[in-house]
Amino acid sequence: MPSIFNIFIDSNTKLLTMDNFVFHNPVKVLFGKGETAKLSRNIPKDSKILLTYGGGSIKKNGVYDQVMAALEGYDITEFSGIEPNPHYETLMKAVEIIKEKSIDFILAVGGGSVIDGSKFVAAAVHFDGEPWDILAKAARVTKAVPLGAVLTLPATGSEMNGNSVVTKWETKEKLAFGSPMVMPQFSVLDPETIYSLPIKQVSNGIADAFIHVLEQYLTYPVNAPIQDRFAEGIMQTLVEEGPKVLANQKDYDAAANFMWAATMALNGLIAAGVPQDWATHMIGHELTAFHGIDHGQTLAIVMPAMMQYKRDVKGDKIVQFAQRVWNINEDSRDATIDAAIAKTKEFFETIGLKTSLSEVEVGTETIDKIEKRFEGRGFNIGENADITPADIKGILELCS
Amino acid sequence: MPSIFNIFIDSNTKLLTMDNFVFHNPVKVLFGKGETAKLSRNIPKDSKILLTYGGGSIKKNGVYDQVMAALEGYDITEFSGIEPNPHYETLMKAVEIIKEKSIDFILAVGGGSVIDGSKFVAAAVHFDGEPWDILAKAARVTKAVPLGAVLTLPATGSEMNGNSVVTKWETKEKLAFGSPMVMPQFSVLDPETIYSLPIKQVSNGIADAFIHVLEQYLTYPVNAPIQDRFAEGIMQTLVEEGPKVLANQKDYDAAANFMWAATMALNGLIAAGVPQDWATHMIGHELTAFHGIDHGQTLAIVMPAMMQYKRDVKGDKIVQFAQRVWNINEDSRDATIDAAIAKTKEFFETIGLKTSLSEVEVGTETIDKIEKRFEGRGFNIGENADITPADIKGILELCS
Repeated sequence: MPSIFNIFIDSNTKLLTMDNFVFHNPVKVLFGKGETAKLSRNIPKDSKILLTYGGGSIKKNGVYDQVMAALEGYDITEFSGIEPNPHYETLMKAVEIIKEKSIDFILAVGGGSVIDGSKFVAAAVHFDGEPWDILAKAARVTKAVPLGAVLTLPATGSEMNGNSVVTKWETKEKLAFGSPMVMPQFSVLDPETIYSLPIKQVSNGIADAFIHVLEQYLTYPVNAPIQDRFAEGIMQTLVEEGPKVLANQKDYDAAANFMWAATMALNGLIAAGVPQDWATHMIGHELTAFHGIDHGQTLAIVMPAMMQYKRDVKGDKIVQFAQRVWNINEDSRDATIDAAIAKTKEFFETIGLKTSLSEVEVGTETIDKIEKRFEGRGFNIGENADITPADIKGILELCS
Repeated sequence: MPSIFNIFIDSNTKLLTMDNFVFHNPVKVLFGKGETAKLSRNIPKDSKILLTYGGGSIKKNGVYDQVMAALEGYDITEFSGIEPNPHYETLMKAVEIIKEKSIDFILAVGGGSVIDGSKFVAAAVHFDGEPWDILAKAARVTKAVPLGAVLTLPATGSEMNGNSVVTKWETKEKLAFGSPMVMPQFSVLDPETIYSLPIKQVSNGIADAFIHVLEQYLTYPVNAPIQDRFAEGIMQTLVEEGPKVLANQKDYDAAANFMWAATMALNGLIAAGVPQDWATHMIGHELTAFHGIDHGQTLAIVMPAMMQYKRDVKGDKIVQFAQRVWNINEDSRDATIDAAIAKTKEFFETIGLKTSLSEVEVGTETIDKIEKRFEGRGFNIGENADITPADIKGILELCS
């Protein structure tokens, strides 16, 4: 059976092979309504727990009460106020509390920001030196406080990986680290937590998960059909189920499928042995750092411009994406790529997101600042490390 | 975007929801050529290892030498002779050696039989009572010797799960057990081990992996698109890559994709929250137990008959399978189901397998014995527990 997507493959494409890889994801997922009740089976009885959360929405939607009921009898200290794009400054306060009270387990209850922030806290407690180096200098994490999560917002995939993104408020730097030491020991994924989310968070979450897949898929072909088909399956699911959740947040099936798709989008599975890009994320992080724009929203703006700007080197995979995810059937490679970019943009608009910088009031001044920041870092980005600071400016101008 | 597969959905179908599930697969996979060299990073230095293997093919193809080179300095005891459909009688000898020599790590080097057998050994060592009860009475395994694997034959998925199938030679009983305690701590998957496999083992492996997917997929819809699309992606990959491996066993890419597909086919991912069948396996096990027919071969015979016999209750998923895996575009539900069964049978024949009992010289006498054996067990099989011993006879007559 020939692959339908080969018809427009660039004849200059070198046939590559997937890399060797290690896949190791020991996170235990407890999926489904009511699973929060099983927390105590997964945390040692004599644990001293730091319960971390955000702005208090978990107190309105009942999740806080579910957690407290499930943890009756435990020694619990609460740490609330972890903000979106969690701040280093805030998190360091949690580090102090853990040291002071000899806390030995962190339970993060919230979305990606709470879980990411809690991972940084878990690593910083045992870090010898200035914990900011974990982010700024990729200093190695050798020990961390054990961590569990109750996810309340599908988006980042943080519930099933060892990644974390933290912002230093003082300098407006948003940086990432990753370590197997901070993978949650377990994560509870209850789709009913979606029922009461602000609609904008659902939109952002759908875009975030979708673009996580694209960062690991829209590169160049390496003959890895399992990874490709899983990626395509996740994107098709987000395209079908995302709008259903937006239309009715209490559609349990749609919520469940959205939640599981977002987790699968960034748990290492579709990244195994294949090239990865992440340039859209790195540019998007700057838009958040400078203007506080929601993460998912920044990605929805940058990604279509990225596809357009890199359409030559990404062309083979854009064509595959067009044909398999969007059922696009144009009669040339160029028209197929054009249609894929248009469909992607249209999808983000359909789910309620903006797709240009002007709509979020970002102008040339910020573009110049972002270019300079990447110049200062002194390295290129993208799967081929061929996106220079000048290219980043070009990409941002394209979505102005 | 409407789901294309809905056009022939039975209007009587109840809309169901996926079940809550726990997904927890901590097996560390080391994937790619040369990965065997990393064994010593994954086994504690002071371990006393029992190296288990089969008939000695690993001595001819170089895998034994790779393993021994990687394990220089370890205390190693060898246990060879684990046969296909590993025998309880053989495995109990390994249990004795482990107890005698205080061995504390098992390294299984081989295909599914060696890994399955080693899992049973790992569980039996610490089992209080008659270890056959682990299989015959589903006695709970609470402790096991730590286990690692070097896979040499993609097929069973045993390298990334806690399942094991063992045969008692004395009574010709082939039974299964599963426990998280016997999941390998790590598995090395080097696609180059496929280069020297007997071609029949490759054919059997492709069918085994494909039918593992069908056992978890061809039931009834529960609105689980991630699980469905992953399952379809694994099957499409086996359909495309399997024949490439058979045409050229030294095609690294095809070998790698076949190997990763077979692992993904039975690691819990596509089973999460969805109904499972396994009736084809249970019937196939009897054909192996009575006649020694290769496992993959038994499944290739039984599955098309199972699809035909259960075409009514499995109809919705057979239609989805037809359209998404085989691109079948018939104008009625019945014709679509007929075409899917024909395509499946044809695929098994294309990869060199037989699809009827007469071709493997199994007649009515065996069919009667199998019916009686299921009668003796006193329970029905299949995802709806509606396949009676008489139905099993009917299915076997259909593939006679």
